[in-house]
Amino acid sequence: MALIFFHYKFSLFSLLSVLFITFTSSHIIPKFPSPLIHPEQQINSGSAKNGLYITKFFTQTLDHFNYNPQSYQTFQQRYLINDTHWGGAKKNAPIFVYTGNEGHIDWFTQNTGFMFEKAPYFNALLVFIEHRFYGKSIPFGGNKEVAYANSTTLGFLSSAQALADYATLIIDLKKNLSATESPVVVFGGSYGGMLAAWFRIKYPHVAIGALASSAPILQFNDLVSPYSFDNIVTQDFKSESENCYKRIKESWKLIQKTAKKHGGLELLRKTFRICNNYMGIDALEGWLQTAWIYTTMTDYPTPTNFLNPLPAYPVRKMCEAIDSSKREKDRLGKLYEAANIYYNYSGNAKCFNLNDPSDPHGLAEWQWQACTEMVMPMASNKESIFSEYEWSLEAFSASCKNEYKIVPRPNWITSEFGGHDIEIVLKRSSGNIIFFNGLRDPWSGGGVLKNITKSIVAIVAKEGAHHVDLRYSTKEDPKWLKDIRKQEVEIIASWIKQYYQDIAKI
Amino acid sequence: MALIFFHYKFSLFSLLSVLFITFTSSHIIPKFPSPLIHPEQQINSGSAKNGLYITKFFTQTLDHFNYNPQSYQTFQQRYLINDTHWGGAKKNAPIFVYTGNEGHIDWFTQNTGFMFEKAPYFNALLVFIEHRFYGKSIPFGGNKEVAYANSTTLGFLSSAQALADYATLIIDLKKNLSATESPVVVFGGSYGGMLAAWFRIKYPHVAIGALASSAPILQFNDLVSPYSFDNIVTQDFKSESENCYKRIKESWKLIQKTAKKHGGLELLRKTFRICNNYMGIDALEGWLQTAWIYTTMTDYPTPTNFLNPLPAYPVRKMCEAIDSSKREKDRLGKLYEAANIYYNYSGNAKCFNLNDPSDPHGLAEWQWQACTEMVMPMASNKESIFSEYEWSLEAFSASCKNEYKIVPRPNWITSEFGGHDIEIVLKRSSGNIIFFNGLRDPWSGGGVLKNITKSIVAIVAKEGAHHVDLRYSTKEDPKWLKDIRKQEVEIIASWIKQYYQDIAKI
Repeated sequence: MALIFFHYKFSLFSLLSVLFITFTSSHIIPKFPSPLIHPEQQINSGSAKNGLYITKFFTQTLDHFNYNPQSYQTFQQRYLINDTHWGGAKKNAPIFVYTGNEGHIDWFTQNTGFMFEKAPYFNALLVFIEHRFYGKSIPFGGNKEVAYANSTTLGFLSSAQALADYATLIIDLKKNLSATESPVVVFGGSYGGMLAAWFRIKYPHVAIGALASSAPILQFNDLVSPYSFDNIVTQDFKSESENCYKRIKESWKLIQKTAKKHGGLELLRKTFRICNNYMGIDALEGWLQTAWIYTTMTDYPTPTNFLNPLPAYPVRKMCEAIDSSKREKDRLGKLYEAANIYYNYSGNAKCFNLNDPSDPHGLAEWQWQACTEMVMPMASNKESIFSEYEWSLEAFSASCKNEYKIVPRPNWITSEFGGHDIEIVLKRSSGNIIFFNGLRDPWSGGGVLKNITKSIVAIVAKEGAHHVDLRYSTKEDPKWLKDIRKQEVEIIASWIKQYYQDIAKI
Repeated sequence: MALIFFHYKFSLFSLLSVLFITFTSSHIIPKFPSPLIHPEQQINSGSAKNGLYITKFFTQTLDHFNYNPQSYQTFQQRYLINDTHWGGAKKNAPIFVYTGNEGHIDWFTQNTGFMFEKAPYFNALLVFIEHRFYGKSIPFGGNKEVAYANSTTLGFLSSAQALADYATLIIDLKKNLSATESPVVVFGGSYGGMLAAWFRIKYPHVAIGALASSAPILQFNDLVSPYSFDNIVTQDFKSESENCYKRIKESWKLIQKTAKKHGGLELLRKTFRICNNYMGIDALEGWLQTAWIYTTMTDYPTPTNFLNPLPAYPVRKMCEAIDSSKREKDRLGKLYEAANIYYNYSGNAKCFNLNDPSDPHGLAEWQWQACTEMVMPMASNKESIFSEYEWSLEAFSASCKNEYKIVPRPNWITSEFGGHDIEIVLKRSSGNIIFFNGLRDPWSGGGVLKNITKSIVAIVAKEGAHHVDLRYSTKEDPKWLKDIRKQEVEIIASWIKQYYQDIAKI
């Protein structure tokens, strides 16, 4: 089965929203959550807080690891800084750094309220660094046309370079602030969490500890089952109702069958309120899979506006729509209502665009990362809520070669960062890492779920979703979530205390 | 004072011998010891053992950290392997890997008898990996003309790439041997020792421990005094006799004075038996400094043939020549006799060539590394046995720019590998490293000289020289040297035992 690259762009609430998906005929390889709403617009919409930070730029080296003339090129890397509560350099007050993910840093900043809320307690300086090639941190003169043009320029988008960026920027910033002895703790969620953990492992001289939230650092090679992600999505829906799971599982055949009927495509288009006249079945299926998958990732216990505005426990809400006794036979209509919870909870959308022509190259940064080093084998088994699907590196490589003229290095991440026998390895070579995972989150299948040492701690929330711990607290937060944040604060405080004791001795 | 790049080539015993030195007017910035004798010829000379290993090549990736088309180029990386004593994959028997330095790997292999002698005890497989751009591990089709042509190709010579080479090769080798669970211990001396330590710190999932012998990982930035290296050279001569130190210290003025006299240059040429008619004073001074410096590095307690054939305690022998009561007033002649111990202990040389025209580009691999990332500030103070000299990054950068059209990144090594507050950092983030240093060795000034934790151990030999522990044992070895090797074996054995206990639990 050949892999097809498929690129979605949704237009919701008249706001630009972007989601890229690697797609096989009716099989999504999910990426991490990315903003469906452009951050600037989100700020203007009033959903995020203004005055959270000031924006700065750092002149960053294009290539840290080589010394050819091109490697010396520089670019402007954006970072956001908040010193409201900082205790200052003289007191060696801590610096909390968010290691930016695959997107605009302001969006991740706005969704990492934990750092803002805990800054006063720690007297911490807050710094949020944008990942190269994302947001406004674009090499090659800030020109996206050039930077994303092909593998010659995109080639400098890699996790190792990103980590070296963070190290370089942090060291320089500390020097400029005369705060070289201030302890740095790194934070990150999702891919940012992977980077936070790897940063602590690779740059222990820069960060004394890391809170790596929902960081699937084991989602590579054969470290975990390729079915783990899908199994969790499946289990999330099953846990709400067996009927809900069955209806979604059956829907793929139902859609195929409907499409083949005379007028079937038009019926589907109308049912799912797709704006354009043309509609491919693969695109529709991808659109639905996106809704199911991203809702499990963000199955938070309170109303949120992370990817989209969503109610509390949105998977339950979807299943309630599907299980509803109303319009008993209108299975497609019920699926639409469930999808509508994800795409249109505010109720403002009139119709949905499956295809957006504004990305003619089909070049997306995460797609690039997936095609080079972030090769995460994922498949669907018989029990899956999606159609059965086997992972094939050959097919994946072929599609990457076709798209970018380069082939993946599927073993690189584990060669560079490890993963095999992680508990044995880290036991003798690292310390001060918190791995948080919520088991409702399908990415938790690739997470570190067991304590490794006293200072390498796995915090597992049975009812948690994707880096829920990093979100702003709300009045409705359940006790387990409050307890977890408290535990995280205590652990981070212990690292800092230990660090002060260490430096007092020299 | 402007820095001048100066490149020596000596012709001794009709054998090709190479030594590159960064040179100011009468000031050497020393590089690590490199073979003065070409390894193949050394083998033929009978001083090294044949049949020690078989030679293999690994198809290595040119650039591990980027994904542009050029990064996918490959080259043949040489490694040497000896499985005589290996206990095999089924027993998870250990693998000892030497992380190659800046030179032919066979030469380092032949000077690392420790690994061969301990292989039977550990049932260890021995692997010696050549560093990219050295020996026969030349990128760009193995073509040195291309690889060394300029910064566009030399740009891929870096320590980070070398470490990634080692990780990639080891992982692949273990897979091919079905020995993925065999513990790997890395060994290295000098720059190879730095690589071994950094490899353990950066790739703890590949190596369970490291013996880093005479590894000056603190010889960067402001981590140690820039005078430390020179101070130790000075102290080495002083410790033999105050007169010896004074005579050498005064010699620089004496040589300058003599050169200015009518017929003075010719007198110097004859006294020091320089072959060519032309002789520059800087070259002569560099030639002498090389003798003094390299003899302190290799001030071993037994006769050796590491850089050159040398007697036991060669610094003492030099000072005996200088302090001799014979020909009391012939100070230059006595200096010659002392230098002759280093350059011509076998007594076969008729005269010495200071300049060798066979390297017209003046491009040397280590010079390149020094000009990019291995920026080690070194200076001479008033007490120095050499002329006073202050380190200047600006001058050094200017000469690198002039030579290679690129400027150094003097902060990169400490950004990438750390160094500041190393005892605090490694205490919480690493384990299983032995740092050996001999205090006669001027490089020990940049070494780790204090225990950090129970498993990060500094072994310091007051009477030891450059990675003496790694050399073949001899009947004449003093007790302290035997004790040190025994201690190293016990520590490495404890790591392996601990590893077997760890994997037995999963």
